[in-house]
Amino acid sequence: MKLLGISGSLRGNSLNTAILRSVAAKLPADTVLDIFPLNGIPPYDGDLDTDTPPPAVAALRAAIGAADGLVIATPEYNHGMSGVLKNALDWASRHYGAATLIGKPVLTLSASMMGTGGARAQAQLNETLTAITARLVLRPQIVVMAAHEKVRDGILEDTATLDFILAGIGDLALEIRARAVPA
Amino acid sequence: MKLLGISGSLRGNSLNTAILRSVAAKLPADTVLDIFPLNGIPPYDGDLDTDTPPPAVAALRAAIGAADGLVIATPEYNHGMSGVLKNALDWASRHYGAATLIGKPVLTLSASMMGTGGARAQAQLNETLTAITARLVLRPQIVVMAAHEKVRDGILEDTATLDFILAGIGDLALEIRARAVPA
Repeated sequence: MKLLGISGSLRGNSLNTAILRSVAAKLPADTVLDIFPLNGIPPYDGDLDTDTPPPAVAALRAAIGAADGLVIATPEYNHGMSGVLKNALDWASRHYGAATLIGKPVLTLSASMMGTGGARAQAQLNETLTAITARLVLRPQIVVMAAHEKVRDGILEDTATLDFILAGIGDLALEIRARAVPA
Repeated sequence: MKLLGISGSLRGNSLNTAILRSVAAKLPADTVLDIFPLNGIPPYDGDLDTDTPPPAVAALRAAIGAADGLVIATPEYNHGMSGVLKNALDWASRHYGAATLIGKPVLTLSASMMGTGGARAQAQLNETLTAITARLVLRPQIVVMAAHEKVRDGILEDTATLDFILAGIGDLALEIRARAVPA
């Protein structure tokens, strides 16, 4: 099973990226999670949204299309998901009706230093994915509060949080398998 | 009175940008509205959020600081404001506690071809501005539906809509004057 991880934070020491990397290291042997960095995704511009989009956008859409499912992690900036993540989803949502995100199983999570754990950002993210008609895996939501106390040296050390996310990955896997077309 | 206009859409024929330009052309003689294009604002990256930020970010923050008030227009993409606009606000919200947006009077509007007129995007925008502690001017909200029928050749031709927005600018002016410190 091939999963694609997307972090809404670009900084090198991002807690959300660290969580994705930590999850990737603990997956079952039949599952891989590759992270697609959003650093190269340009601002969405309808005039560039042609049949030959910017190369990073084409790569993002192709990576989403090639994945069995997605794991998207977002920080919370100003009561919402990061503009960086929303911008990437705006690109990924196109062209209308033909986006590789349509019907794609997606597990979302948010992580923040705050006690709210980015819950507002995650609510926006889920709403946006619903608008795109991705297929949300809505298990008890993964909201990682005080994330800076759970991540050390780029590793998610809090085993309860890690296990909770891995259970979410399990639900994502069930959703993927339920939708797989028999060969 | 010096207003700064920000459009959440980058494309040349943007309805939101057209509306801002049309409003700028109809303001009272003592008021100017300059539009700050977001095209050059890079993706927010905490590692670049230093005392010497990217030049376009420094210019945006300075333009906000120099304006008496802002008029922000957003399209609606995937049930939210554009990632482009959110990203610009993420930059403009920093540094925490010292952003030029803090306390700044802001009038918001949304415009869309849809019947909903971008109302969901505007709700997100207002929430984000509230988080930043900008000073929202919340007159009956300016939601321009079927905007493609009201804008022709880059001009907002619908006089009822134009008058409604100009009344909103009047409310913004009242807010600005109410907060002005007597010389």
